[in-house]
Amino acid sequence: MSADERWFPSHLGEMTEEECLEQLATNQVGRVSYCDQAGPVVLPVNYRWEQGSVLFRTSPDSLLAKYMDSEHASFQIDEYDVYNQSGWSVLVRGAASHVGDAELPDDELPMAWAEGARTLRIRIIPHEVSGRWLLPG
Amino acid sequence: MSADERWFPSHLGEMTEEECLEQLATNQVGRVSYCDQAGPVVLPVNYRWEQGSVLFRTSPDSLLAKYMDSEHASFQIDEYDVYNQSGWSVLVRGAASHVGDAELPDDELPMAWAEGARTLRIRIIPHEVSGRWLLPG
Repeated sequence: MSADERWFPSHLGEMTEEECLEQLATNQVGRVSYCDQAGPVVLPVNYRWEQGSVLFRTSPDSLLAKYMDSEHASFQIDEYDVYNQSGWSVLVRGAASHVGDAELPDDELPMAWAEGARTLRIRIIPHEVSGRWLLPG
Repeated sequence: MSADERWFPSHLGEMTEEECLEQLATNQVGRVSYCDQAGPVVLPVNYRWEQGSVLFRTSPDSLLAKYMDSEHASFQIDEYDVYNQSGWSVLVRGAASHVGDAELPDDELPMAWAEGARTLRIRIIPHEVSGRWLLPG
């Protein structure tokens, strides 16, 4: 069944904050985003939701390291079902910063999936969390 | 098996342009992104890759409509496997514009999954396409 053959469009609805936080707590991969002079950059990372913030590791000499020291970062997760044309998405807008060893025990951060010395710890503290359901029509 | 129990990290590699374009042509859902004064916004859309550009529909009174008339837009797709800690992602950076009825036949655009009058047609023409594989370690 293709999109063009469906009779009923899917229904959009706002997720409650509790629903957003539950998805953030139960997923492992999302997309971190920042703006440079050419616009937004969106990159997947494996993360952990801990103490009300998004935590992940990266390489200290990456572009992510440079841009994840900003009041204007975002983090996004979603899931969708092509057959039912449904899904959900959660967007976290907030402040990204580098986290020192003394601030946070190392075992509260996930190990990075990717190889390389991903010794830099990043935290995004939300200013705003929002999400939407797209329910089958 | 959790991330902390794995012995071998996954290998990162650049995707060729051909690999990026193949993923863009064969997927149906991605994330469109723009920057406002508070930073990046990342929102899922169902799309079609046609004539070397990303096409999708939205509502003419949406924020997306407002921001998708810009030289600085992005579009991202990815897929990942939590068990193998692997996946890929493709990032399109380019110019977003509203597409008139005369410019493009309506049947080249996908029907929007979501309900509502999604009569506005958006095209993102890439300045730059890049992608990365994360292969199991």
